[in-house]
Amino acid sequence: MGEAGKKKVIIDTDPGIDDAMAIFVALNSPEIEVIGLTTIYGNVYTTLATRNALHLLEVAGRCDVPVAEGSHVTLMKTTKLRIASFVHGTDGLGNQNFPPPNGQPIGQSAPSFLVEQANLYPGEVTVVALGPLTNLALAIEEDPDFPKKVGQIVILGGAFWVNGNVNPATEANIFGDPEAADVVFTCGADILAIGINITHQVILKDADLEKIEKSNSKFAQYLCKILGLYFSYHREAYHINGVYLHDPTTVIAAINPSLLTYTEGVVRVQTSGITRGLTVFDNTKKRYAEMTPWTGKPKIKVAVTVDSPAVVQLVMDRLINT
Amino acid sequence: MGEAGKKKVIIDTDPGIDDAMAIFVALNSPEIEVIGLTTIYGNVYTTLATRNALHLLEVAGRCDVPVAEGSHVTLMKTTKLRIASFVHGTDGLGNQNFPPPNGQPIGQSAPSFLVEQANLYPGEVTVVALGPLTNLALAIEEDPDFPKKVGQIVILGGAFWVNGNVNPATEANIFGDPEAADVVFTCGADILAIGINITHQVILKDADLEKIEKSNSKFAQYLCKILGLYFSYHREAYHINGVYLHDPTTVIAAINPSLLTYTEGVVRVQTSGITRGLTVFDNTKKRYAEMTPWTGKPKIKVAVTVDSPAVVQLVMDRLINT
Repeated sequence: MGEAGKKKVIIDTDPGIDDAMAIFVALNSPEIEVIGLTTIYGNVYTTLATRNALHLLEVAGRCDVPVAEGSHVTLMKTTKLRIASFVHGTDGLGNQNFPPPNGQPIGQSAPSFLVEQANLYPGEVTVVALGPLTNLALAIEEDPDFPKKVGQIVILGGAFWVNGNVNPATEANIFGDPEAADVVFTCGADILAIGINITHQVILKDADLEKIEKSNSKFAQYLCKILGLYFSYHREAYHINGVYLHDPTTVIAAINPSLLTYTEGVVRVQTSGITRGLTVFDNTKKRYAEMTPWTGKPKIKVAVTVDSPAVVQLVMDRLINT
Repeated sequence: MGEAGKKKVIIDTDPGIDDAMAIFVALNSPEIEVIGLTTIYGNVYTTLATRNALHLLEVAGRCDVPVAEGSHVTLMKTTKLRIASFVHGTDGLGNQNFPPPNGQPIGQSAPSFLVEQANLYPGEVTVVALGPLTNLALAIEEDPDFPKKVGQIVILGGAFWVNGNVNPATEANIFGDPEAADVVFTCGADILAIGINITHQVILKDADLEKIEKSNSKFAQYLCKILGLYFSYHREAYHINGVYLHDPTTVIAAINPSLLTYTEGVVRVQTSGITRGLTVFDNTKKRYAEMTPWTGKPKIKVAVTVDSPAVVQLVMDRLINT
């Protein structure tokens, strides 16, 4: 543990409106110490993710936190990426034309930074992964012992027992780099996966937005500006008056795991065909007649229930009380 | 409707121990008229399925029911088939060395017979499909209007929101011919799919077996001989003292649909990779940003709940009271 027993956290992020919320929640949570941000494509391209990460740290007055830029391409070197600008705006932050940040990313790549920190603090670093899992897969490639050295990996990804949000089979982060996700899920690290089966239960409503609008906190005042687009998207795509707290819920799972329950099993990712990016969790006790692609692979924890009101309340507290 | 308003039923089958139960239930159900059996590989190879179908009709004293032999290969002409002899015995009927049947299949192929009957009785024929869906896909190939002419197709197949029985992704009948299943599920016919999420709730227990053993009915006396192996398999693979009534439940769904509830949506089948044979049911109201492989395809009914005690009771009644 780091300063005063705080959990050391690296956030791998593609900001992104709910990434901004998650980063603010993390920076304002005394239980954890954010020791770095690593960036990845997803909601935006990686270069913009880096710019936004630096920008958000400046908004928070936390330029001491290093930003390491991550991969611009998938694990298989694909440059054809699915970027969710229709959700987060072309700037990733609600089309607000924020000025460029003053800061710069560190020289190290995201995978190298992840490996370095895991080696510096063996068993103590929690990685909160909010985008496609390319950086983590590359960290495992760079150091095959990374899974043993990292403390825990908390992943926003997958659609377990429910339809996806890219298509009926697939959730966006896993779809972003299915090969990387399969490497990470089966790497043997202590992994906790939070799928959209969980995050679709954690909704920030209009009434919460009003409270944010009335707050004087710098986080709240900033988020007011960027949340409008996110609310519009949810009204149009999901017919709800509210927004899913994907990324903030995942940070909360690292801060207070007792607000969710988990089950353990092997997760594999489909990498071809119409269900490319699908996560299949082996939850059976059946003795299959044949070996399967799940047989003998390391188990991970998958979230099955969430105390949604408590998660929303905690997110609100951390955004409003600064 | 046929004689005295009975529903005309063709059973597409790969007998199979639970196929034998299902066929007997069907033959002893006044609500339906079995107008033919068509055969397919799955629990056994197709030639043995034909032999067993003829044999079971002779046991039942129903040699008037025609048997049409189905495809020996998948829709893509694959000859490498997965045969579940470890579940049903090498003879498909509990390794009992029954004598060969006296009867012969009709000259017509299963797909041609299906097409012919659907044309003879438009909108009146219910096909109960208990194995891989090759014959039905070939019937659709032979007559593109078959989906409109057939009354209903009740399918034992798929694993909806649960793990499969071949591997964590896939159920055996769909795995047997995923390409055929995708053709059938999207053909536009009135389709009802009963997955193992349903049939794993419908269990014939030891106490039921004792009742069957005490019955004088010819069906019960025959089934006593073949059920032992099926119970052994379930003890070993699933650690349960009982057997899943996959095929009988599907016949009951044709006889009394009110014992199950259904939801409607598009089902597509994954045909490659580690989840080959996976069924993905689109159950969302989400407006996806992109067209998906589910977009615009015809909907089918998928069973979501079952009154298991009522189904077991009805199966028992039809097997014991003859």
